[in-house]
Amino acid sequence: MSDYKKEDLKNSTNPIGKGKVGLTADVTGVSGTNDPTYHEDIHDKVKINYDNIKKSPAPEEVHQWQREHIKVDDQSPEGYPLNVIVDPAMREMYQVVHNATLTNVFDRFSEQQPQCRFCVEGLSCQLCANGPCRIHPKAPRGVCGVDAHTMVARNFTYRHVTIGTSANIFHAHQAARTLKAAGEHPESGLKIRDAEKLKQYAEMAGFNPNDPLEKLAVQFSDWVMEDIHRPFHEPSKLVEAFAPTKRKELWNKLGLFPGGGYSEVAFAQTKCMTNFTSDPVDFLLHCVRQGVANEYQGLFALDILQEILMGTQKIATQKQNMGLLSPDMVNIITNGHMPLLAHVAIEMASTDEWQEKARQVGANGIQIFGHVCEGQQLLNYAGTQSMRAYGGQEGEWLSEEYLLATGVIDLFMFDYNCTVPTLPVYAKRFGTKLVSTHPVIKLQGTETLDFVPEKMNEQAEKVLNMALEAFSKRRDENREVYIPPYTSECMVGFSTESIRDALGGSFDPLIEQIANGNIRGIATIVGCTTARYGQGGSNIFKITKGLIENNILVLSGGCTSSVMEYTGLAHPSAAEEAGDGLKAVCQQLGIPPVLSYGACVDIGKMTHTAMELADALNVDTDKLPLVIGAPEYLEQKAVADACTAIALGWLVHVAPVPSVTGSDVVVKTLTETTETLGLGKLMVELDAEKTIQIYVDHIEKKRKELGI
Amino acid sequence: MSDYKKEDLKNSTNPIGKGKVGLTADVTGVSGTNDPTYHEDIHDKVKINYDNIKKSPAPEEVHQWQREHIKVDDQSPEGYPLNVIVDPAMREMYQVVHNATLTNVFDRFSEQQPQCRFCVEGLSCQLCANGPCRIHPKAPRGVCGVDAHTMVARNFTYRHVTIGTSANIFHAHQAARTLKAAGEHPESGLKIRDAEKLKQYAEMAGFNPNDPLEKLAVQFSDWVMEDIHRPFHEPSKLVEAFAPTKRKELWNKLGLFPGGGYSEVAFAQTKCMTNFTSDPVDFLLHCVRQGVANEYQGLFALDILQEILMGTQKIATQKQNMGLLSPDMVNIITNGHMPLLAHVAIEMASTDEWQEKARQVGANGIQIFGHVCEGQQLLNYAGTQSMRAYGGQEGEWLSEEYLLATGVIDLFMFDYNCTVPTLPVYAKRFGTKLVSTHPVIKLQGTETLDFVPEKMNEQAEKVLNMALEAFSKRRDENREVYIPPYTSECMVGFSTESIRDALGGSFDPLIEQIANGNIRGIATIVGCTTARYGQGGSNIFKITKGLIENNILVLSGGCTSSVMEYTGLAHPSAAEEAGDGLKAVCQQLGIPPVLSYGACVDIGKMTHTAMELADALNVDTDKLPLVIGAPEYLEQKAVADACTAIALGWLVHVAPVPSVTGSDVVVKTLTETTETLGLGKLMVELDAEKTIQIYVDHIEKKRKELGI
Repeated sequence: MSDYKKEDLKNSTNPIGKGKVGLTADVTGVSGTNDPTYHEDIHDKVKINYDNIKKSPAPEEVHQWQREHIKVDDQSPEGYPLNVIVDPAMREMYQVVHNATLTNVFDRFSEQQPQCRFCVEGLSCQLCANGPCRIHPKAPRGVCGVDAHTMVARNFTYRHVTIGTSANIFHAHQAARTLKAAGEHPESGLKIRDAEKLKQYAEMAGFNPNDPLEKLAVQFSDWVMEDIHRPFHEPSKLVEAFAPTKRKELWNKLGLFPGGGYSEVAFAQTKCMTNFTSDPVDFLLHCVRQGVANEYQGLFALDILQEILMGTQKIATQKQNMGLLSPDMVNIITNGHMPLLAHVAIEMASTDEWQEKARQVGANGIQIFGHVCEGQQLLNYAGTQSMRAYGGQEGEWLSEEYLLATGVIDLFMFDYNCTVPTLPVYAKRFGTKLVSTHPVIKLQGTETLDFVPEKMNEQAEKVLNMALEAFSKRRDENREVYIPPYTSECMVGFSTESIRDALGGSFDPLIEQIANGNIRGIATIVGCTTARYGQGGSNIFKITKGLIENNILVLSGGCTSSVMEYTGLAHPSAAEEAGDGLKAVCQQLGIPPVLSYGACVDIGKMTHTAMELADALNVDTDKLPLVIGAPEYLEQKAVADACTAIALGWLVHVAPVPSVTGSDVVVKTLTETTETLGLGKLMVELDAEKTIQIYVDHIEKKRKELGI
Repeated sequence: MSDYKKEDLKNSTNPIGKGKVGLTADVTGVSGTNDPTYHEDIHDKVKINYDNIKKSPAPEEVHQWQREHIKVDDQSPEGYPLNVIVDPAMREMYQVVHNATLTNVFDRFSEQQPQCRFCVEGLSCQLCANGPCRIHPKAPRGVCGVDAHTMVARNFTYRHVTIGTSANIFHAHQAARTLKAAGEHPESGLKIRDAEKLKQYAEMAGFNPNDPLEKLAVQFSDWVMEDIHRPFHEPSKLVEAFAPTKRKELWNKLGLFPGGGYSEVAFAQTKCMTNFTSDPVDFLLHCVRQGVANEYQGLFALDILQEILMGTQKIATQKQNMGLLSPDMVNIITNGHMPLLAHVAIEMASTDEWQEKARQVGANGIQIFGHVCEGQQLLNYAGTQSMRAYGGQEGEWLSEEYLLATGVIDLFMFDYNCTVPTLPVYAKRFGTKLVSTHPVIKLQGTETLDFVPEKMNEQAEKVLNMALEAFSKRRDENREVYIPPYTSECMVGFSTESIRDALGGSFDPLIEQIANGNIRGIATIVGCTTARYGQGGSNIFKITKGLIENNILVLSGGCTSSVMEYTGLAHPSAAEEAGDGLKAVCQQLGIPPVLSYGACVDIGKMTHTAMELADALNVDTDKLPLVIGAPEYLEQKAVADACTAIALGWLVHVAPVPSVTGSDVVVKTLTETTETLGLGKLMVELDAEKTIQIYVDHIEKKRKELGI
């Protein structure tokens, strides 16, 4: 290392000091030392006080309080974050960890202020060794010569779209591996629960639906995996089989019909190299092209695959929030987006044998809760809703650290994104066993199981045993715990099929209500929550309330679903808050004005519903009275999903402001030009009231164009 | 757009103003309007004065002057950039464009000073909408909770390694498509020039070498493409077929044996999502795993494929630099890294028919020059060296803008990276026609040809016609031009095969010279040049001179080869500058002490030579007295290549300092821990003298271990 180490490290601003290397050398197998060595400096002996906090309103007053609180419109840095946190459980637990000076998401947002303006606007590049570069009036180009437009568009591509597209397709890829294992190894614990769906889609893919189910499962999975791995210059068969005809024609015309998703990502990544492509519009159109792959090789495919394995959605009443936890139960949280092993574990834990094992270690039983999008999926599947060990839904990603701080989480298993990097700190402090169930996500000093769908029974057993052990330890140490007493009831399980079934087998009744104006249109309110000022769930809540008051039916998916649940908007009684037309429809059908489709990855189901509605109306998808909204979008999958929506011809609202404002060419391309090509467009608005009006105006415009 | 546009754009720091959207909607076909609308504000009427500059030394004194100049060790910001530019042609042309206040790479580096320390150390993240975040003592974690170690390792992965790996594999993928087209469409202009190589590697891949060549070409190409597109969980067949046995065992043990490269990239990209993997060591080991794919599905594969199509290297004396240009010729530059269409164009331009066409427009003929790595490849292929229209080599990537400023470049065609974003500005000002020959690289307002290997004759014809037209326009407008009068002679064409042939069919004579100590060891000096203080080619020059003085044989590849060429180090007479042992060997064989392997992508050939040497010695690759150096590395492919070298067990020197110093865990992992696993390691050193000593020490250590 010569002088480099001595000199440069001495001058480094690295605040962590002397971290040890906790080597996890086997990137495909079980690894990790379970020793969070990087966190020696974190106060894991910090004093926790559960008493000295300001309690949220009484449980029965919560929904009323939320509605009053949000009217105050106090979204400024003063009063942050309690001015935005409307989840009563999270409000209490935030105070617990904040008072203990434990690192947590809202406080970290405050610490990061003010944020770098170059980065905010996309005008900072760190790609090459001549950089980093920042663009400003005295330096209008980076060292290589890149201008503001190319820098912004390239950053948008490689920081957001290629990552998000990879992640959604990778998810579908793992689901396909799992379905294949279910076909090849029926003893593995995996089941083919929705045989009709398998037959239907296998037939669309060109297979004989009368073949044995196991054979179809293998054929269909291989077909999906082959398409994901197809070269970019060969048209995708998934897109060919499942996308609307008029869209496919347009994409072909514009050069946006993709090949295999991974090859497309590598194509786009290659363009992003230093001194490679420097045409901003080319970058953005390639993002839209990836958006098509993101939908059909990602969201749409994974929804089908997971439903075949876990059962299609079923409309049902369920419960949510921390009040469902019990200090006397073995409490397991399953987190992420890919509830494959989790589903097997819930089924296993539901057996008498495992409930008895729990009693043997002194618990009243085992309950497994979903959290974040993983939970939203489990909440919706017919296959899980009635399982004995299924405990219900916890919260959104922002509440993760606060959830562990209750002290009653014995095991936290996770498989995909939205597992925050500080969990090892919390796990150590609060006695939670952490386990990753796929090598695609590894946390510092945390055990990772290999992904072996053929051995899911075996792995589920291992996880449950870990949880029993953790519970025993919690009891032995007699740890202090606190459970905020809040739960919300919600109606869930909405999807293309379950809605159509509820309507009597056809979308005609819904179309009639749209045509007669009782329902003006549909808004999907999807995606994440953020910790930003004015957000934290409250922007989602405000906008959704405004939309239903304007007779716009809302579909939710992602952490937005949690917000709908803890604010009561996903309960049939919220029909009272809707405008007269929507209210009548909801009351007649006994449904809420917000239909939870589940997870962010269930956006594939919403686009499916929209495509079926467009088919029923015999119009292209861009003609629908529909707006896509991500009022608190956070990460890269959300950006890829926005590209999907643009490909499908829809208006997509996003907030916060994406890091593209440094280039007027990029802003204009995404917010205006794409629409002139027959694609959709992006719309950015931070104010909830203005957002609602934009939605209403767009829907009314589309109604007019449809002549209704 | 609501208020977003009115307010946010008004406050934007975007310095470019009102750019128009020059839409290039067809991402796969021919597109572009040839109207560089983004550059309205650039002074394309700027006054150029070719007289008022300080001339470089007389051509015959250049190499002596370079050696004196570099001794002064004046590498500070004072005197920059003329204190680092040792290419006499670039020195003159830099002054021309600088005096005219035209944007150019060295002046832009000055404008970008000082650079952001957070970005320099890897402690800035722009992934999600809660950010951007910067890590410092008062904010030791990003909003999501990411610490310095994870942030640095993740930035390293997605900003550098996944992009570089994608780019090298994408290149091999295009070469495979081209070889397939040569097999399927022998009339396309493509030829199978090295039939023996095709047979040899096709046999290693499991095909029958006695099958017809065309059939073998298709089979072998399909085999490569299938492997590139293989799922990450199926072992790569290219790695299996071509990597050394002992390395494969180690990679399997460490979980570093990759599957298909694109799937690996998508896997790594997925990990990089917000709130996904947060184990820095896992990120870094996955980078090494990508390094294996980068080699065998990237560099190694593309070298084989291109040689089959363009002919293996042949040792020959060639010429380099701007003095080769002629105002009376149609001057075409071909730039990039993938000289597929360029090769067809040179062959076509070499015909009487096309030379006559050039005379008909008033030129003395057509000459096509290689530039950057594209040129280094063309310079080396037996297939191009003797073609009549082949003009020789121009410079490294830094000289691109300066080259166009001569005013005599009629057409500049390009196909891959190292084509700077400002070329449309220069092309407009100096009358050069720009044309991209692959949609993977698009420049603003610039024509792009689709990549259709089946139609290369047709496309080459189109390109040559564009050049004739541009020449006519230059003559009609009677443009002022200036050609710096410098050329250098160099010996090129070194590769595993050409060296072995020159040695009489076996590496034994070379091994004997290493064993007897005349040659102490081998250093590869590869990669880019940078515009940084102390670099600009001069760091490469200094280090190489020091190494040969220490009897270390140097192999060069990339822009380093241009430096070796314009400094005379790639000429046999440079043997005089080597230590006694190396000098004797070089003089006996009539070769220089620096053997140019060609391009950065020819690193695959160097690893091939190293593997053959290791085989001949019957040792694993990590036992060789060998150091890999990239003394002026610039971009993402270089970082991926460093990961390859680590995978193969080698010490890799890099300068400038990579953006990883914000984490001691990352620094320690890359510079120490990997070696303890049997892998190689990174070494960072900015000072040339110290670098030389580190190389010498490492080589002597390896000699001792080998008992020689």
